[in-house]
Amino acid sequence: MTDQKVDDLKIQTLGEKARVEIQGLRPYQPGKPIDELAREFGLNASDIVKLASNENPIGPSTKAIAAMEKEARELTRYPDGNGFDLKQALCQKLTTDTVVIKPENVTLGNGSSDILDFIVKCFVARGDEVVFSQHAFAIYGLVTKIQGGECKVVPAKNYGHDLIAMAAAITNKTRLVFVTNPNNPTGTWLTQTDIENFMAKVPSNVVVVLDEAYFEYVNETDYCDGLTLLAAYPNLVITRTFSKAYGLAALRVGYGISAPEIADLMNRVRPPFNVNSFALAAAIATLSDDDYVAESKAVNDTGMVYLTQSFDVLGLPYIPSVGNFISFEIPVVDGSAVNANVINASIVNERLLAMGVIIRPIANYEMPNHLRVSIGTQTENETFIAALAKILTAANS
Amino acid sequence: MTDQKVDDLKIQTLGEKARVEIQGLRPYQPGKPIDELAREFGLNASDIVKLASNENPIGPSTKAIAAMEKEARELTRYPDGNGFDLKQALCQKLTTDTVVIKPENVTLGNGSSDILDFIVKCFVARGDEVVFSQHAFAIYGLVTKIQGGECKVVPAKNYGHDLIAMAAAITNKTRLVFVTNPNNPTGTWLTQTDIENFMAKVPSNVVVVLDEAYFEYVNETDYCDGLTLLAAYPNLVITRTFSKAYGLAALRVGYGISAPEIADLMNRVRPPFNVNSFALAAAIATLSDDDYVAESKAVNDTGMVYLTQSFDVLGLPYIPSVGNFISFEIPVVDGSAVNANVINASIVNERLLAMGVIIRPIANYEMPNHLRVSIGTQTENETFIAALAKILTAANS
Repeated sequence: MTDQKVDDLKIQTLGEKARVEIQGLRPYQPGKPIDELAREFGLNASDIVKLASNENPIGPSTKAIAAMEKEARELTRYPDGNGFDLKQALCQKLTTDTVVIKPENVTLGNGSSDILDFIVKCFVARGDEVVFSQHAFAIYGLVTKIQGGECKVVPAKNYGHDLIAMAAAITNKTRLVFVTNPNNPTGTWLTQTDIENFMAKVPSNVVVVLDEAYFEYVNETDYCDGLTLLAAYPNLVITRTFSKAYGLAALRVGYGISAPEIADLMNRVRPPFNVNSFALAAAIATLSDDDYVAESKAVNDTGMVYLTQSFDVLGLPYIPSVGNFISFEIPVVDGSAVNANVINASIVNERLLAMGVIIRPIANYEMPNHLRVSIGTQTENETFIAALAKILTAANS
Repeated sequence: MTDQKVDDLKIQTLGEKARVEIQGLRPYQPGKPIDELAREFGLNASDIVKLASNENPIGPSTKAIAAMEKEARELTRYPDGNGFDLKQALCQKLTTDTVVIKPENVTLGNGSSDILDFIVKCFVARGDEVVFSQHAFAIYGLVTKIQGGECKVVPAKNYGHDLIAMAAAITNKTRLVFVTNPNNPTGTWLTQTDIENFMAKVPSNVVVVLDEAYFEYVNETDYCDGLTLLAAYPNLVITRTFSKAYGLAALRVGYGISAPEIADLMNRVRPPFNVNSFALAAAIATLSDDDYVAESKAVNDTGMVYLTQSFDVLGLPYIPSVGNFISFEIPVVDGSAVNANVINASIVNERLLAMGVIIRPIANYEMPNHLRVSIGTQTENETFIAALAKILTAANS
């Protein structure tokens, strides 16, 4: 046997020793970075429009930048592992006449996806069930599988959560339910009554994670604010993020709000310095930057109107969304009809990429005929719609 | 039953539903942050000397600061989840005439502790054994316990790893061995021959993590450079960090180098955006800042000489260290001898805190009579020694 063969054998044996849950795992596919597209297609990075990752299009908060510049003096120091100041700022921001949030309710994450990971680590062992909706955020399935849990995916209803079916799917093997409001990538949302009725049916020893990553964008008056349910439900965890309306995606910071007992459990599995110092400082600064969040929302509202009107003009169906993104459908033309060219969501996406426009294919969300676009600035939205119109016109000619 | 009692019952039931591994877990205790000490003792933060977390005392790399300022324009964008540019820079830096490192060998972490977590997630299931040394870095035990693994702690030899005993401790239930070189908090180190002999005994389907967080500080010529062993051992993972000699502790960035098969497994469990954009940019900048690393080492070398000489003068035993820290012993005086005051490491630590000097008690490393001090600037070292001398003199008077 040659040395090469001996090495191959060793490697194979090692791979087989990996936990069985890891062996078939596929990592999360993020939106394509601008630099990557520029490299692949030989494009100029500054000409590329990226509307693929539900990022804030208005640029950084100046308060965040100032906070980071100040923080730079402490670059060689570890972050405050307890996030004392950010927890204080969050409590002040989130406490209202009817809801009291204290530091012991808060768990800080390297993005809110960190919190999803912690909660699964705390409650899900091999073979335990985790319930979530079809078309829900891909990370739920991923963190569940890594931990060895069983995903119980409940069919969606009009692309949204079917909370009645989700409650019915809970068994005595269920440890955790993920509810997303609004849901990514569909943009569908749930009312206060929807979630109250759901929570009333969930056994008190099953944890419900209410993922509110896009909370700040929602204008609907009967949209559920999860914080109002915390006092009644010690099995509820609300997750939110600074990556969207607060514009800090590059820094990675999110949080969970829950009863102190769950926060205590999550903080036991939280790595000691999971949130970096610049994230802590910038998050505190943007929490008080109401103008920035207001502008983010205003740009989003305008862009949402523009995009939905444009989809109507182009004759493309879309799923009404309350987030900072919208999923639209490319009806499949198979080319067998006379004079028709083959066209579908995948082809449209490829052609947009070649024109320097990055949006998000969502076939991995069981939505192969849809594409998701993030709401950008007016210029970005117009560039996207012009490119899309050109592709559709060419396909129909 | 009152409402309060109903709530308590619910909470208790929920806690009991947490995974059994989490229920008895104690989180990692980081070094006390300066702001926290200032709050507790009513001290002025700028007067406090912190030598508790093995941080780089010379302040930030100007190249890192410049890279971050440039990166600030992209604050609202998610990081490059694949870390393309940093991987390229690392490969260029680490590749030598005899060692070739390619991007497929690299896994990026939110600090190198992230890599430790990934490797445990990949290989350790409930009941699997993980071998490491007494007095080794606390995170090994923590990540193992979270995953449900069994810690097999091998007694140290003169505070260092006993690699012969560690090899002998491997059974067919062992999935993973952690070797730390140099070890924190003891500062002990292993030679190339030590580790080669050890690796030759480890079965090829047991993964060895060689934690080289303090690699850059070591001057010893026969110190083992783990990268030279990679070609021979596909079961080896080297971990390194930018938090020490590169001065980026605030940003959280470290990496693992391994055979592509292990890197592929780790990247499946790695959260998609675990390393933030500023960490990526600053790490690339400092990788080329040889002057900064050289100055960090020079300050460390000088400080180590000063501290060891001072311990000799004070009559305090210490463990010779090759890192950027050193652990010294406070011989216990129980106060029963005539005219003697009770003194021990814990009391000395408390008195140092009250004087605004933060170092690290290491009773949780089974070293209750030792304290660990990080090497600071000359001024910081002198402040620490002066405070220590004052405490010892007062105790002996």
